Amino acid sequence: MSGMLSWGIRSRAGRVTGELGRRWWAQGPAAGARPSALRAQVDKFGGVTVHLQQTDSTAHLDEVTFGAMLKDSLTQWKAEGRAAVWLHVPILQSRFIPAAASQGFRFHHAEKDSSTLTLWLGDGNSRLPMYATHQVGVAGAVLDETNGQVLVVQDRNKTQNAWKFPGGLSDPGEDIGDTAVREVLEETGIHSEFKSLLSIRQQHNHPGAFGNSDMYIICRLKPLSFNISFCNQECLKCEWMDLGELAKTKEATLITSRIANLLLYGYREGFDKIDLAARTFPAVYSGLFYKLYHRKLPETYENMPNLE
Amino acid sequence: MSGMLSWGIRSRAGRVTGELGRRWWAQGPAAGARPSALRAQVDKFGGVTVHLQQTDSTAHLDEVTFGAMLKDSLTQWKAEGRAAVWLHVPILQSRFIPAAASQGFRFHHAEKDSSTLTLWLGDGNSRLPMYATHQVGVAGAVLDETNGQVLVVQDRNKTQNAWKFPGGLSDPGEDIGDTAVREVLEETGIHSEFKSLLSIRQQHNHPGAFGNSDMYIICRLKPLSFNISFCNQECLKCEWMDLGELAKTKEATLITSRIANLLLYGYREGFDKIDLAARTFPAVYSGLFYKLYHRKLPETYENMPNLE
Repeated sequence: MSGMLSWGIRSRAGRVTGELGRRWWAQGPAAGARPSALRAQVDKFGGVTVHLQQTDSTAHLDEVTFGAMLKDSLTQWKAEGRAAVWLHVPILQSRFIPAAASQGFRFHHAEKDSSTLTLWLGDGNSRLPMYATHQVGVAGAVLDETNGQVLVVQDRNKTQNAWKFPGGLSDPGEDIGDTAVREVLEETGIHSEFKSLLSIRQQHNHPGAFGNSDMYIICRLKPLSFNISFCNQECLKCEWMDLGELAKTKEATLITSRIANLLLYGYREGFDKIDLAARTFPAVYSGLFYKLYHRKLPETYENMPNLE
Repeated sequence: MSGMLSWGIRSRAGRVTGELGRRWWAQGPAAGARPSALRAQVDKFGGVTVHLQQTDSTAHLDEVTFGAMLKDSLTQWKAEGRAAVWLHVPILQSRFIPAAASQGFRFHHAEKDSSTLTLWLGDGNSRLPMYATHQVGVAGAVLDETNGQVLVVQDRNKTQNAWKFPGGLSDPGEDIGDTAVREVLEETGIHSEFKSLLSIRQQHNHPGAFGNSDMYIICRLKPLSFNISFCNQECLKCEWMDLGELAKTKEATLITSRIANLLLYGYREGFDKIDLAARTFPAVYSGLFYKLYHRKLPETYENMPNLE
């Protein structure tokens, strides 16, 4: 599927960049005239994109006329050998969606003020890329290295009487470590800093994720404050607990017990045994940066010349 | 945010379970009558859910009447102190969306045959959970432990003249290791099996992910076959390359160079230095299973009694 990864490049906030992207639907049908085909932008993967803008030219367009225009356009795009159609619809223009659906379009995704529908015209199954499939939750295991105590909570709403590490869903654009630090502060009042990534859990058909998949990551954090002031809405209890006690108790979720054992191993024999370290690198094209987590490399491997 | 994680529990495939969920819109307005309020299900977080079913009772309903019913209902829900409204709209009923949008509803998500809109009625900012925020891509570093050669490809469409590990986006519900094995087979014709997880990269505002975040995971795989038969649509080149050569060459993406160094470290000094091992556990409530990845625990920590 990787060959199709760049289909329909656009951002949450913006739209297509460049001149072409801004001039959809340049010509609405003249009153009484036979509607012309829809204006579409061809992409480098052989598909076409149509934007229904909220302009005067669509304000007076009825759904039946739109359906006829779309039908004519589909005939043309098929004749031209186009592989797929992307249809972007502002929320206030949603009256056109049923006409598209009746010609085979289905929702690809929607958020806030617009939806995107797609129709695969190529051979075989659709090779269009999926929308996001995972939510990411992050928990922070805040460990006081001076005494081996770790910060644990009991949820008010779920898994009562089971100790766990404070955490929650990441916000859009938020780095894993930042989510852990933020959630720990919100739930417990404890300030902390990111040290390492400890574990990743992948779970599918997650009931709390609208049936999507869930990626749940536990980080090791270092406490910067110690006075607990926990959120009563979210937590029933919050304590500093001995790592050995947390590793032994039956009153903990399975994953918490397991990570308590991992932390105990690290606490006793060195955190380098359990940590994935984070490092920031520049992305190739975008000018943005990414974070990469893996086992720490010894100096001799770290400083190889190609990484300069 | 974690206190709101269970808002609106429903699956991709199904709808709300139970009797209440199946009887939305039980009473359409009688001809000429003043429309009644919409039928809604109250959830345990203090919100309400409305399903617009494709039944006869909505077939003759016009958008203006729907807008009036929704307005009346909102007045009632606000008076009752409801925190939020979830509105589920089948694609063929999308003509009702503009009326909802004009009263403040926005898309939460959409896929295939339906969209979901939400309106926050509570104090402050919305505390409703987000839809999925990440796509997950997986690459496989197929390493032949007998000779230190690793399988690399050059993409046809992107990053030309740069060696990388074969990989691609995970399908819905697919485990990380299965994605790696499938993508390696599709791109190179090599059969392999999952050994461990090596690295995680998180990147935001990803151009190939509709502006969402991207999680890119590299796995260590063991080859089960050796004759390359690569996919011409996706790959320009495909080779077994010495790990040392891959770690040194300038013709590789930065992340590939880095993981080549990590693999070299593991190949020379033991893969236990670099691996995250996978283990499957049962989820608490759902009857499903999840995979958990972290550093392998020594026997003494692995067999603690609470993990039985």
